[in-house]
Parts: sequence; C-alpha cells; structure tokens
Amino acid sequence: MSTTVLEYIDSNKAQFKEELFDFLRIPSISTDSSHRGDVKKAANFLVNKLKSLDLDRVELFETEGNPIVYGELTTDNSKPTVLVYGHYDVQPPDPENLWDTPPFEPTVRDGNIFARGSSDDKGQAFTHVKALEAYLESGIDFPVNIKYIFEGEEEVGSPSLVPFIKNHKDLLSCDMVLISDTAMFAEDTPSITYGLRGLTYMEIEISGPNRDLHSGVYGGAVENPANALCEIIAKLKDKDGVIQIPGFYDNVKPLTDEDREAYKKLPFDEEKYKEELGLNAVKGEKGYTTLERASARPTLDVNGLWSGYQGEGAKTVLPAKAGAKVSMRLVPDQDPKKIAQLFSTYVKSLADDAVTVMITEHHGGHPAITDLSFYGLHAAAEAFKEVYDKEPLFAREGGSIPIVADFQKVLGAQSILMGFGLDSDAIHSPNEKFALKDFFRGIKTSAKFFELLPDYTKK
Amino acid sequence: MSTTVLEYIDSNKAQFKEELFDFLRIPSISTDSSHRGDVKKAANFLVNKLKSLDLDRVELFETEGNPIVYGELTTDNSKPTVLVYGHYDVQPPDPENLWDTPPFEPTVRDGNIFARGSSDDKGQAFTHVKALEAYLESGIDFPVNIKYIFEGEEEVGSPSLVPFIKNHKDLLSCDMVLISDTAMFAEDTPSITYGLRGLTYMEIEISGPNRDLHSGVYGGAVENPANALCEIIAKLKDKDGVIQIPGFYDNVKPLTDEDREAYKKLPFDEEKYKEELGLNAVKGEKGYTTLERASARPTLDVNGLWSGYQGEGAKTVLPAKAGAKVSMRLVPDQDPKKIAQLFSTYVKSLADDAVTVMITEHHGGHPAITDLSFYGLHAAAEAFKEVYDKEPLFAREGGSIPIVADFQKVLGAQSILMGFGLDSDAIHSPNEKFALKDFFRGIKTSAKFFELLPDYTKK
Repeated sequence: MSTTVLEYIDSNKAQFKEELFDFLRIPSISTDSSHRGDVKKAANFLVNKLKSLDLDRVELFETEGNPIVYGELTTDNSKPTVLVYGHYDVQPPDPENLWDTPPFEPTVRDGNIFARGSSDDKGQAFTHVKALEAYLESGIDFPVNIKYIFEGEEEVGSPSLVPFIKNHKDLLSCDMVLISDTAMFAEDTPSITYGLRGLTYMEIEISGPNRDLHSGVYGGAVENPANALCEIIAKLKDKDGVIQIPGFYDNVKPLTDEDREAYKKLPFDEEKYKEELGLNAVKGEKGYTTLERASARPTLDVNGLWSGYQGEGAKTVLPAKAGAKVSMRLVPDQDPKKIAQLFSTYVKSLADDAVTVMITEHHGGHPAITDLSFYGLHAAAEAFKEVYDKEPLFAREGGSIPIVADFQKVLGAQSILMGFGLDSDAIHSPNEKFALKDFFRGIKTSAKFFELLPDYTKK
Repeated sequence: MSTTVLEYIDSNKAQFKEELFDFLRIPSISTDSSHRGDVKKAANFLVNKLKSLDLDRVELFETEGNPIVYGELTTDNSKPTVLVYGHYDVQPPDPENLWDTPPFEPTVRDGNIFARGSSDDKGQAFTHVKALEAYLESGIDFPVNIKYIFEGEEEVGSPSLVPFIKNHKDLLSCDMVLISDTAMFAEDTPSITYGLRGLTYMEIEISGPNRDLHSGVYGGAVENPANALCEIIAKLKDKDGVIQIPGFYDNVKPLTDEDREAYKKLPFDEEKYKEELGLNAVKGEKGYTTLERASARPTLDVNGLWSGYQGEGAKTVLPAKAGAKVSMRLVPDQDPKKIAQLFSTYVKSLADDAVTVMITEHHGGHPAITDLSFYGLHAAAEAFKEVYDKEPLFAREGGSIPIVADFQKVLGAQSILMGFGLDSDAIHSPNEKFALKDFFRGIKTSAKFFELLPDYTKK
C-alpha cells in the first residue's frame, strides 16, 4: 500500500475521530419506535459522508422500516467487487444509570471511546468508509470495486434488508461481503470469525385471572401466572444445561475431533475470564468447554422477565400476567423458524388450562460458516498481519449476524468478518466502548485489505 | 337503637360521602417513601375528624415511621370498652393505566365508590367514626366506652404499631378490638371473619456476571441469573401445589372434620367464581377445595418478577441480575419468622456457586383465630342481622391482618372482624371500589353493635 494512504490516515486521525463522534451522538435506537427520527438522521449522516466522496452512485432507499444507505464505486471490472455491510442502528442504552458518561455523548477515557454504538457497529462500519476516503483524498487509485450497504434494523432482525437484497440482486452483485461487526479474540490479537450462531427470539406471556388479585384473598385458590411462567422456564433446560425442547438438537452438526482440537489451540484463560466477569464459577451445557459453549453449541437464555409489583417494599398482589423474553442461539444446521415452532409447541404443552399462554416470535437468523479456503479470508488475514504485526486467529463466534447467511443464500457471496472490537467492549451493555487505536488500525487494515485483494484473486 | 341515631345517619349521607371522598383524595401510599407527606396528611385528616367530635382525648403519636392517630371517649367504666382499629394508608395504585377513573379522584358508578383505599381501609374504618358522631350529634348517650387507633403502616407490615401497643398497654386496654378491614362473603351476605392467615414476604435477588452481557457472546458459557431464578422458584412447589420448603408444614394445624363440614356449608359457586375471574380452571394444592385453599391452607405466591429487558421488541442481553418478590400466607400455628428462616435456607440451598443469592425479608404477621364463643362476636352478629336483615356467616379469610394476633398477644383482647367490603372490591388492584350502600349500612351496623354490646356482656 502506498505510504501516501497510510500517511493520510495518520495525519487525519483527529478529524476521523470527530466525524465518528458526530455519528455516535445520534441515538439511532431501532428497538424503540420513539427514536425513528434519530434512526433516519443516522442514515442521512452516512449518505452525506458517502456523497462527500467521489462515488459513482449514492442513494437512500426507503423501506417499510428504516432506510437502507447504498453507495458504489466501480474502478475496473476485472477487479473483484467487495460489498461492505454495516449497520447504523444501535441497542437501547438501558439501564442508563449504569453508564459512567452519557451513552450518546462519546467520551475518550484510557484510550477508549465510550458511547452506545462505538463498537456495535458505527465505529467498526465507519472504518471502511474512511479507508476509501484515504485512497481518494490522497490521489491513489482505489484497487478494487466497492459497494456499501448500511441498514438501520440490524438490532431488530433486519426485516427490510432481506427483501431488499432479494429485490436488488444485480445492484448488490459482488465477489464477497466485508463486515466489521465482530470482536478480536483478545486485545492486540486480531481474529477472523468464520462461524456465527443463528438466533430464534421468542416472547412468552402467561395470563391468569382477568385482573391483579389480592394474594391473601385469592392466593392458593387460583394459579399464579408468575409461578407458572417460572415453572415453564425451568423446564426448558435440565440440570446439565441440556435444552429440553423436543427436536431442538435434531439438526445440530456435532463438533468434530478437528473442531475440538482447533478450539483447544485458542488462547483462553478461564480464571481471567471468570475474574473479568466477576464470577465464582462458569456454568453451562455439560460435556463442553467454556469456549465451545460460547460459540459452537446452541443456547437458551432468558433476556427479560416481568410480572406484578417491581417497586420498593412489598405489595401483596397475585399478578394477572407474567412475561418473558427467551432467545436461543443456533448452530449449523438449525433452522430458526423450525426452532421457533418447536419452542412454541413445547412451551404450550407445559401449561395447563388454569392459565393462557401467548407466544410471539421476534426476529431470528440462520447460523453461518465461511469456507476456510476462501481467498478473501486469506487476503484479510494478511492485511491483519501487516497492520497488527501478528498472525490472526480463525475462530467461531457466539453472536449472530443473520445477514451473513442471507448474503450467502441470495447473492452467493461469502462473508469476511473482519472484527476490530473486543468481547470486553460491553456491546448491548452500559459503558459500551471501542478502542481508539483499533478504530485507526481498523481503517488501515481495511485499506490494506483492498490493496492486497486483487493479488489473492489469482491464488 | 334510638331511631334518632338512624335518622341522623340517613339524613347525613351526602355529607358523610363528601367527607370520605376528601379522605380518599389523599394518596397516602405507605409502600412508597415519596408519598410520606401524603401519609401524614391522611393522619391529620383523621385527627381533625376526631377533634370535631366531643372526645376526652385525641392525639397524634409520632413514631419512627408514620404517625398513629389515637382517640378515646369514656362514658361509663362499668360498660365494655371497644378499641376500634383501622389504617389510613393505602396500596400503590399501579398499574395506573388500568384504572377507569383516577385512583385518587373518587367517583361513583353503579352505586360504587371507585378509589384506592375506598374498601381497604379508609371507607371501612371511617364507618366507626361516623357511628360515634351519629350518637353524639343526635344527643344520645354513647352506650360503651370507645378508643380509636388508626395506623399508617398497615400495607408495609405495621412496624411501628406493635412497639406502640407494647409501650401503651394501659392506654389501649380494652375488652375487644373492632376492625373493619375484611370482606363480606358475598353481596348482601354479611359475614364475620373469625380466622385470618399470617404472612411471610420475601425478596430474592440473583446476581451473576458483574454487568449485563451480550447473549450471543456469552450465552451458554455462563449461568443466566433469570434462568436460575426461575429454576429456584419452580422448585418451591411440586406439581400438586405442595410447598417444598423443608419444615414448612410442621406447625400447620390440620383441618378437622368439623372445619371441613363448616366450609361445605358456605355458599360458593365455583363456576361463577371462575367466570368472575375470567378463568377456565382454578388450581392449587391437591386434596383441598377452592375455599379451603383460599383461607385455611398456607400458600406461596410470586408477587413480582423482574430481570433484563422488559421493553418493546428484542434485546439480546444476558442479564446481570434477576429478582422476585415471593410471599407466603400462613395458617395457625405457623410462625412468620421461622418460615422466613426456612425459606432462606431452602432457596440458598437451591443455587450453586455460578450465581449469588441475596434474600431480604419484608414485613410478616402471625395467623389468628377468634374464639367462636366470644360474646362480642354474638353482638356483632345480631347487629348485622338487624341492619342487613340476614343471619351473618362465620368464615375464615385468606388475607392477613397481622395486628389481630398482636392485639391478642399484647392486650389479651380478641378481635371482631366486621367486614363491609366484598372480595370483588379489587383491593390492591386497579379500580378498587366500595359499595356506597355498604358504607352507610356499615355505619348503621357499627352504631347498632355499640348499642347491643352492653347487654351481651352479661350473656
């Protein structure tokens, strides 16, 4: 890579940071409909950024949900085309009182940018925009063809993106998808994620009496929906952490000896892990290591729980309703729709007629695996190596980017998951952060990747 | 009873209603410390009402919590002394959006006063103040000696009242306690409650990781506090509704054949009961009827439940904490402190070291039974019969008035539970109500009771 490009990045760090901060200040929370205006504002922020570069085309596509931002630059049809995917929406910041600094006022402490979306995904996605800028502004020909697609509904399951991809196959045709929405294995330990879990996210509502009752007058006489909910949830896993939904494991590809060997090679200190999380012990499905459980095995977690009186003191109420959000991480070849069906059938079978069960399905996504022999992965590994001065690791990750499976299915394109974040970034938690140095190294790794890619096409 | 007293009541209904409305407008919510000022305001309302009558003494006693209102009138030392007990504090109104009219703006619809506290207990307690007024204002000698004690902490377990009684045994010495804080068996079906359940109210907090985690990155690797909480709660009862806490039933007096025969005589239509509650089926401890389960058997109910994300849509969080409020209704001779201890021990034994369990004890109270041969009960029954033109039923009630056991223990006085409310009054729920006609019949029954009582002393 021309030193000009690197110099441009180094001499514009302050400006890049300020631009990212402007982006982070927009509370583009897609799970909360009252922030719809902010979500649109974040989309327009990206449109304006892309328009300020010399692209062939920049467009805001309206959808039934939040808009999709598109941009493209064709330099040479003989060169590979990279589709950069990212999302400009963020998780809600709650519980907001646990943030040391306000979630939408980005602040640098100890070399980290603290803000909601800093790591997931605004900060990471923005690296690829700045990498292109570094070429164009320093007068160096961009080495590949590039397309950008940024959505505003990733945190709610990308309902508009999949139809959009299906309806714009030509527009989005590409040789690979580049995504930075994952974490490195550890600090200064670059890693390329080649496997992602899928997701099925359900909501259970148990209804009993037609109103909240006095627990003295009615207690014992009628079923308590909160007790009933707990009994149902307790039956979803056995004491060994094995999920009890009939058929749940039917399509799970067992871990091979090779898989398990690869896991053993990953650097992992369980004591440090527990210490960092403030835990006396880790716990999960029997027969698997912590790393395997965290990425290669399916899970079932309660994400939210509510019923009755949650305030100060005591209220002797027998609640009319109780609810829970329950999500399952899936592994190849589990199908999220099928799992949702199995979940519903099983949960309904656990309740008797003293209560009514209502089940809602939220967004889901397929698990995905990228072929380890894919040339794009090798170019990405080399780019990491040159910028971080370290061989990157190849790992599977526990989180879900359902769109990876969709890109594969609809566009036939494999994804390169070039993560610059860290597991400790506290994405989806208070005090989300992104290391400033990884923001800049991310821009450089991206720029390097684009430079190296044409050569790897031939390999 | 002199017709003058009855006439006074009949001709002052509008005024009595307006005064009660003023009382109900005060949001004296004792479970919420931000309402402390309102609680004091309600105490002063009663002080002013008592002061407007020609009593020997009216006093506001400050306590470490909310004040205690005291009043007394001695007419003749040879006559029995009745201590009227009531409470001027109320339950929180939440969920407030389910009220058809605001909880603290009393409104009459279909002959019912809708307001928080209308039935529990402002409306019922106020009847005994108005009964005295009817004698004094119509110039008729009051037939007994009377003392009033009104507290503002009933809904939080009366922490100041018990020490107060212990420290004021002489002040409060009496022949019986009169309490209207229970329900009639059904509309126009007066009943005297001779048994009350006790209460142990606990709070469980389960802590796992030191922060909310991403359920994709950490799901499967670490214990989820919300799942762990549900598993614990599910183990508190078995599938037959039998509470699993070791030792829980040790001091429960079994129901005798006589008890069960008495229950069978009570009018009860289970189909109507289910219909009124909107239930397909009732459910509870196996081997007992619905009425027995609702009043003569101990219970365990979740009153509140919370963890993680409760908002709209989906958030993929593995929550750091989960909590529940769990209360148990007790029957003779269970001891609330001992049950709290057994509960804590058992709950802690159910959790492993992947989570931390914290248990807090809220207020509790002893169960109580009044001797069916007590003369005060017979006078009360006759008063009911004359006003309602119907023989009252004698029943045990599922709710708790812990103070009844304390009056017995400290003052050696039995209690007469003269309920004017209805189970359908929705006390502790949205749209609490109290029938206007029962407010007036309550005043008359109280007045009648005072008139009859001296004669029954001799029986």
